Amino acid sequence: MKGNQDSMKYLFEPRGIAVIGASQTPGKIGYKVVENIVTGGYREKVYPINPKGGEMLGLSVYKQIADVDGTIDVAVVVVPAELVYGALEECAKKNVKFAIIITSGFAEVGNVAEERRITRFARDNNIRIIGPNVFGVYSAVSSLNATFGPGDVTAGNVAIITQSGAIGIAMIGKTKVEGIGLSAMISVGNKSDVDETDLLEYLTFQDDAKVVLMYLEGIKSGERLVEVLRKATRKKPIVVIKSGRSSRGAQAAASHTGSLAGEDKVFDDIARQCGVIRAEGIQEALNWCKFLADSPMPTGEDCVIITNGGGIGVLTADACEKYNISLSDEVADLKKTFEDVMPSFGSAKNPIDLTGGASPEEYDQALVAALRNENIDAVACLGCQTGSFDADRFAKIAEERYAQYRPVKPIVFSLFGGEEVERSIAKLKEKGIPVFADVYEMTAFLGALYRDYRNKSVPSAEPARVDIDIASIDAAVARARADGRYFLLAQEAQEVMRAAAIAIPQSRIAHSPDEAVRYAEEIGYPVVMKVVSKDIIHKSDAGGVALELVDRKEVLDAYEAIMRNCRNYKADALIEGIQVDEMIQSGVETIVGARQDGAFGPTVMFGLGGVYVEVLKDIAFRAFPLSREATLNMIGQIDSYPLLLGVRGEARKDIDEVANTIIKVGWILCSCDAISDIEINPLAVYDHGEGVKAVDVRILLRESEEA
Amino acid sequence: MKGNQDSMKYLFEPRGIAVIGASQTPGKIGYKVVENIVTGGYREKVYPINPKGGEMLGLSVYKQIADVDGTIDVAVVVVPAELVYGALEECAKKNVKFAIIITSGFAEVGNVAEERRITRFARDNNIRIIGPNVFGVYSAVSSLNATFGPGDVTAGNVAIITQSGAIGIAMIGKTKVEGIGLSAMISVGNKSDVDETDLLEYLTFQDDAKVVLMYLEGIKSGERLVEVLRKATRKKPIVVIKSGRSSRGAQAAASHTGSLAGEDKVFDDIARQCGVIRAEGIQEALNWCKFLADSPMPTGEDCVIITNGGGIGVLTADACEKYNISLSDEVADLKKTFEDVMPSFGSAKNPIDLTGGASPEEYDQALVAALRNENIDAVACLGCQTGSFDADRFAKIAEERYAQYRPVKPIVFSLFGGEEVERSIAKLKEKGIPVFADVYEMTAFLGALYRDYRNKSVPSAEPARVDIDIASIDAAVARARADGRYFLLAQEAQEVMRAAAIAIPQSRIAHSPDEAVRYAEEIGYPVVMKVVSKDIIHKSDAGGVALELVDRKEVLDAYEAIMRNCRNYKADALIEGIQVDEMIQSGVETIVGARQDGAFGPTVMFGLGGVYVEVLKDIAFRAFPLSREATLNMIGQIDSYPLLLGVRGEARKDIDEVANTIIKVGWILCSCDAISDIEINPLAVYDHGEGVKAVDVRILLRESEEA
Repeated sequence: MKGNQDSMKYLFEPRGIAVIGASQTPGKIGYKVVENIVTGGYREKVYPINPKGGEMLGLSVYKQIADVDGTIDVAVVVVPAELVYGALEECAKKNVKFAIIITSGFAEVGNVAEERRITRFARDNNIRIIGPNVFGVYSAVSSLNATFGPGDVTAGNVAIITQSGAIGIAMIGKTKVEGIGLSAMISVGNKSDVDETDLLEYLTFQDDAKVVLMYLEGIKSGERLVEVLRKATRKKPIVVIKSGRSSRGAQAAASHTGSLAGEDKVFDDIARQCGVIRAEGIQEALNWCKFLADSPMPTGEDCVIITNGGGIGVLTADACEKYNISLSDEVADLKKTFEDVMPSFGSAKNPIDLTGGASPEEYDQALVAALRNENIDAVACLGCQTGSFDADRFAKIAEERYAQYRPVKPIVFSLFGGEEVERSIAKLKEKGIPVFADVYEMTAFLGALYRDYRNKSVPSAEPARVDIDIASIDAAVARARADGRYFLLAQEAQEVMRAAAIAIPQSRIAHSPDEAVRYAEEIGYPVVMKVVSKDIIHKSDAGGVALELVDRKEVLDAYEAIMRNCRNYKADALIEGIQVDEMIQSGVETIVGARQDGAFGPTVMFGLGGVYVEVLKDIAFRAFPLSREATLNMIGQIDSYPLLLGVRGEARKDIDEVANTIIKVGWILCSCDAISDIEINPLAVYDHGEGVKAVDVRILLRESEEA
Repeated sequence: MKGNQDSMKYLFEPRGIAVIGASQTPGKIGYKVVENIVTGGYREKVYPINPKGGEMLGLSVYKQIADVDGTIDVAVVVVPAELVYGALEECAKKNVKFAIIITSGFAEVGNVAEERRITRFARDNNIRIIGPNVFGVYSAVSSLNATFGPGDVTAGNVAIITQSGAIGIAMIGKTKVEGIGLSAMISVGNKSDVDETDLLEYLTFQDDAKVVLMYLEGIKSGERLVEVLRKATRKKPIVVIKSGRSSRGAQAAASHTGSLAGEDKVFDDIARQCGVIRAEGIQEALNWCKFLADSPMPTGEDCVIITNGGGIGVLTADACEKYNISLSDEVADLKKTFEDVMPSFGSAKNPIDLTGGASPEEYDQALVAALRNENIDAVACLGCQTGSFDADRFAKIAEERYAQYRPVKPIVFSLFGGEEVERSIAKLKEKGIPVFADVYEMTAFLGALYRDYRNKSVPSAEPARVDIDIASIDAAVARARADGRYFLLAQEAQEVMRAAAIAIPQSRIAHSPDEAVRYAEEIGYPVVMKVVSKDIIHKSDAGGVALELVDRKEVLDAYEAIMRNCRNYKADALIEGIQVDEMIQSGVETIVGARQDGAFGPTVMFGLGGVYVEVLKDIAFRAFPLSREATLNMIGQIDSYPLLLGVRGEARKDIDEVANTIIKVGWILCSCDAISDIEINPLAVYDHGEGVKAVDVRILLRESEEA
């Protein structure tokens, strides 16, 4: 039902539009919307609807939608909340495809029932709803400004999806000021039907949108969003501002795994996984969107900085580390490149410092040398206003070389100084050349460009798959259900582990000394032995436990001793047998989990055990399924990763088996709808080649209706 | 010799100035400097000096400085490097107090010898040098622009000290564009004599400088800088940009402790300790300086956000967490405050959301209510351009209320939207009202203001002092020196620990079974025993070690066994005795260190042992000495601090004793010039009240001449 590309087209390119609740009083929303549509240059028919009839802005006002002859694909609804249902009934009769419900007073003020009622009616009658509680939709392709925001929108190639109406309206004005053109602006409001994912899916394949900017507060259909984002970011840059980074801003995460690090951490990890370019604030996002649409792609990871000031060069190098941009001195023939141009350079180090006295010609020569060198993949060119710096000449050179080398590789500029410099910045910006007054802003943009480049250049990998014995998982779950439990017993959880071939400590129950020896030899020495008896709760007190048994003789002695001790302890105890357990070797303790996340659906998590996760919040999340590469990348993300690589002379741990375990628990979760939560804590990780062991496993079931 | 307030005054307010190397050719530096001084409005006499004589810019050119009759406090030197020494000779004869040596070609290009020569000459003749390799000095108090930078400087109350000439010149232009007035701008160049510390010390007490901005690349006299910064930040905000945050930017740290986390980490910790407001880049620093000079102080920690858009409210709350600003819902009568104004609010939550439809009057009422409420200490007022938002009215209200409540508490504004909004921002900015287009920028400024507030409101605490037996430390060091060693032996290091009453594991050497028992009983069971013999290297192989001895009998048996085993192992071994050691209880392993830092002098460090420091770089540094509070603050700074508080049901550890140990090692370092490095690793920390134990101690001595 969701996300139909063909039908969504009618929202952006409607063949006729009605405004239900049109008003002849300037200043009213019902007037402003009609005015914006008319003055915006929409070329198809516009039908203002108002029971009073009459005329407005040169258009006939229809008393009801049924009176209209032509096709109406979109109806903008601005009547009071209690009249919206009736308006939709009218729309249904006229086969309207989209209702943009600007009207507020629904779920956002607690009126959930009415919102459900209109949504149900719309669904039953094939009407898609935008909103309610939105400011409208702007679509450049049809010159349609169906909003009550500013009438003057600059058309261009940035599409914006916003969950905040106020921010959306303000962004229309702000983008105009900043010279950013919009291909579309959609306010999603209460998302009773169409949400950011539906829109993103459409915009991914709409050529006019070269960049998509999303302002999000909460996620609705996160599992689908993940899927759509993964595809979208391979096609075009997706910049996301998600508010609620802070604990105050964010709603308390209800779920266990998520709450370990707070919900934003989950979002942040998954957004990165999907290739999202996440901006902290609006200004930063707009800075990126302005130039991302038109910028050429880097050809590789090696950037070079050219500067006339050592100070701003070092500051830029600092910023490059922050934004994950590689400044290599190892670029082949770096030295030669610049020596050829200016012999006085001596040893060329990156940043290339032309020094304060550099003439515009020298600047140009150095810039051209860098642009021509095939081993340099992107260039950052800095200008600091010194005694001899000519900002005007610099701007001319920048413009010329940018145009000339645009098809080849990206150049970004930063200029720092007084009025002259500000004028040059404004001039270059106007021409769409990426220039910034601050080196950190410049480098942040270059970082965004590199995120986009890496999204597109990494080959897409298939999710890793594993064989799972689903029947035995279902059987374990069924037993818990039959017992009325929402969790699995340790033994059931171990069955689930076995069903996915995740190694667990071995354990058998022996009923004779000989059997105990046989089991011990199957398991391998040393072993641990424990009495099995419902009548003996405190096994140690009863002398019912024996540790570290290293050979046949010790097992036989222990068997006898345990039986004797327990009889002495409680003569009438029913002893079911003696459990022979593998003695667990200590390894690096890690935590592997999988859960049905409220926002994102199946997610997996990984971290080092104990304080690393609990105190240091050193943990990584991913939406599942995952490729093997992505799983290894997830493991490598945690700060304590060097512990798995082996520090202080220790051997490398079995990282491959950790990855396998993450993939396995992910598939267990995905194979069995009844399971909501799996946590292996600890998963002991041994040296490379020696595997892992799920020492303790906790599995929870959904408490709601079974899926 | 350094930092004399009285003499430094002549640099900023000279009673006469000469330009040695004045040129009649426009475009030359020797012309530009004279021109800037003349057009800048300097009221005292200016003497261009050039052997050719003549006239320029209405001034007589003197052939040599000796020809001048009047007083010359400052000489600006622009002659070629090889003539600088001669120029200084002339200056000396004329009792010139400061030489601003613009000339480059000294240490920065490897010409260290000539720089030393001129510096020595200047020192011997009571001339202070600025530079060489600078662009000059600007001083508003005397309308003196003795630079070759822009002629048009806006006078004001921000003083800038810069290590980069290019950045300094560009900042003159940039501050003008941004409407920031300067009280002074000094380029320190090669810092052959006067450095940032000398200047900062003067500016701390110069009333015209309300804010000091420093751009630093390296630190020269860090120990003094720390001392001066500590005083300065209690008087006025000190904003510092230090480049070289990144490993690429930073020089490799040579020293052991420093290199654990990279040099910038040491700078960052110590800057914070001194109350520095550290900016990442130049734009951020200027944003702060613009308003810091004139802003009122918060009256406490409780901030309130007022907004007409939920979205920008949440983004601001996110930013508040990032910049360490407290948004409390607990503010007394918060709800009542806003309910009284607008009953429709219902429950007032912070941010206070007036919603998109708020009228200017409602905005004003809410703002006034917040400003009048004594329990609200600072207000952030946000405006988002919605349908009904009137940016012009907003600006008027903002201006009026800002002026009215300026003496009472700080208000910061952020406006987001189109052209109308941008105009309002420009208008407010011009009037010196802190307004920002981006909520993150606004909040970063508020964060800077709070740094300043906290610097000034925390009572200054005396350094904690401890008694140390300096004589026995000196004796241990003397023994090492006599041996030609640059490190102390374990036993010597233990003597040093004892000299400061730092607990170490107890250890005695027994020569008879009875003596062993006596020692064991003095130390307390369990004990460990080891043979002491130069002839037995592998004590364990020889059976010369006994662990976990819990009573008299076991000690007697062990004594006998060790003697027997060792005789069997090597019949002719000379056995000096048997060492009886305390068995160390395991505790939380920490690292405590103290060292003579190359840049900052005596510094102390603290972190949790092993991977926490080595892998996670979770470590804190401070310049020493430290107050008790500051030491506890240092301990609390590390991410793994909760481990000391006790996690997972464990008891709180003896944090007080950790603090004592840090203070003690700091004083050991400071009491003995020969010691360069002390590291206790691990310092075992036990439960609260049970102390700490320095398990392993490493002490290094200076390798250069003894101080």
